[in-house]
Amino acid sequence: MTYLLFTLLFSCSSTLIKKENDNFGIVIHGGAGTILKKNMTPEMEKNYREALSEATTIGYNILKEGGTSQEAIEKTIHYLENSPLFNAGKGAVLNAKGKVELDASFMDGKTLNAGAITGATRVKNPISAAIKVMKNSVHVLLSGKGADDFAKKEGLELVSPEYFITQRRLDALKRVQEKEKEKKVAIVEDSEVMYDPFIKDSKYGTVGCVALDKFGNLAAGTSTGGMTNKKWNRIGDSPIIGAGTYANNKTCAVSSTGWGEYFIRGIVAYDISALMEYKNLPLNEAAKIVIQEKLTKLGGSGGVVAIDNKGNIAMEFNTPGMYRAHMNSKGDLDVKIYKNE
Amino acid sequence: MTYLLFTLLFSCSSTLIKKENDNFGIVIHGGAGTILKKNMTPEMEKNYREALSEATTIGYNILKEGGTSQEAIEKTIHYLENSPLFNAGKGAVLNAKGKVELDASFMDGKTLNAGAITGATRVKNPISAAIKVMKNSVHVLLSGKGADDFAKKEGLELVSPEYFITQRRLDALKRVQEKEKEKKVAIVEDSEVMYDPFIKDSKYGTVGCVALDKFGNLAAGTSTGGMTNKKWNRIGDSPIIGAGTYANNKTCAVSSTGWGEYFIRGIVAYDISALMEYKNLPLNEAAKIVIQEKLTKLGGSGGVVAIDNKGNIAMEFNTPGMYRAHMNSKGDLDVKIYKNE
Repeated sequence: MTYLLFTLLFSCSSTLIKKENDNFGIVIHGGAGTILKKNMTPEMEKNYREALSEATTIGYNILKEGGTSQEAIEKTIHYLENSPLFNAGKGAVLNAKGKVELDASFMDGKTLNAGAITGATRVKNPISAAIKVMKNSVHVLLSGKGADDFAKKEGLELVSPEYFITQRRLDALKRVQEKEKEKKVAIVEDSEVMYDPFIKDSKYGTVGCVALDKFGNLAAGTSTGGMTNKKWNRIGDSPIIGAGTYANNKTCAVSSTGWGEYFIRGIVAYDISALMEYKNLPLNEAAKIVIQEKLTKLGGSGGVVAIDNKGNIAMEFNTPGMYRAHMNSKGDLDVKIYKNE
Repeated sequence: MTYLLFTLLFSCSSTLIKKENDNFGIVIHGGAGTILKKNMTPEMEKNYREALSEATTIGYNILKEGGTSQEAIEKTIHYLENSPLFNAGKGAVLNAKGKVELDASFMDGKTLNAGAITGATRVKNPISAAIKVMKNSVHVLLSGKGADDFAKKEGLELVSPEYFITQRRLDALKRVQEKEKEKKVAIVEDSEVMYDPFIKDSKYGTVGCVALDKFGNLAAGTSTGGMTNKKWNRIGDSPIIGAGTYANNKTCAVSSTGWGEYFIRGIVAYDISALMEYKNLPLNEAAKIVIQEKLTKLGGSGGVVAIDNKGNIAMEFNTPGMYRAHMNSKGDLDVKIYKNE
């Protein structure tokens, strides 16, 4: 009897070991840029740390209870999209016409399926629209009115474009446009003008999440309002699979945040995976080479969060700060903002 | 005196050898798909071969006379865009509303600069708009009305959206939509319905060009109308740097044509470059692995044309045919349509 019990327990536990991955985990970012302690009030810093902590815990709990990396990422990004603190969903930055144009993408590391939207103006949670594109369309990337129409057809919540607008982003746009008028050139690189009390270079705002679930499946998602004062229906890296988002069970899952144009040209998210696959580099080395060497040499700035298929993580950036947090399978939570913490 | 003359001649010629690359060359494609001899009239086949030959010669002559790879690609693609035979510019396929939405991209292998547009409806030559985005904006990818507005601001020729429409594409759209109504599902994979007299699977139409100039600089460009009956402002791989187009002087220049969704998920153009850079594979092996193994395993179909920094070329596809041509520095012209020629 004792023997039978032992055998049962043993086979049960070995099945569990086989099926479930002890090293599940989640990493998020809320944007990278010139985030300096001297520009931050203690209250605002507390707000950011709390939001990052809550968002990460949402995803962690889903993973812990056996949910998929897709579910964890979707719900975590909902929290960040619904918070006015971050440049995604409510609180997204405004284009030159004072409107939001929302981008998001999602990739599933098991199937290499992916979905993305760009230039949506009405879907409340763009990350869910990206996931719907992946699951229920033959396409990968939908844009503009088509993205909103598709989201509506899929039963996602649409809101008035005014829902997304916050005073902080109206002020930021006004500041940039006044400077543009004065200088008579497009303002994108002037960090003084992009300054806002919390992020200089507000072009860098994006939210993203990568996760490894108990089934060993990786996924990545990214959502953003793009760049303040953007014109001509500019598309950044966030909705571009391989640039802003990439996931592959063979290697890793990556979400980018930074000056999108450089991330597109550098194919940043996929390049980290390629270095792991083709040069057998560990995740942290691959991320370091791509961000600190290749992206920096190209003139780009920003960062990535990433997790590999063993649960190792990377939070690599070449800016003074990146809002970031992660939680491993033991429930250890780590929340950081500045470079040297 | 003789010595002086000899020295002058020698230093002049060694300068030339240093500056000019003997192995310049150009490769183009006009789309891949179920292109079978049995579906082609002799006259139509002749038209395609002549058009491919003329387009390639335009670029070759520019390169031969010391023009840049950018100039050669722009002018070559103009010819293909202006020809109603190909799915780009005039003769582009129609979306579900019977309109064109044009995509194009360009990348410069020396600087890794890039430009692209998607969903334009009025710019006569989308490849020129992509080049203008690269040269005169801080952005990489502009979309929809913004892309047309930017092209206009840059002084490019705009035309009425009707300019692009041909009877052949109206017929193709009607055929697909009738089938869709009958089947009550979105038609994208049904090759019978996508059949047109010249290309079944007309979703595969795209034009592209890669070139190596005498200065050793690589570049790549791609232009397309996308997929017949496309909905929700779908964006394919052609305007996506890394998927439809990639160029890097360290490795190669690539232009893709195929079922765009798979090329996006596979980051096809950059993956060829990554295999060369990280695994030291020659171009033809890298292209073969990415198209015949990786893309095929993912379920995708299509092909690429590519040229490396030594002038070696690849024209790799997993469909029954791909309109393609190349010309090397000796002026040898090679024009092919079907798989086994």
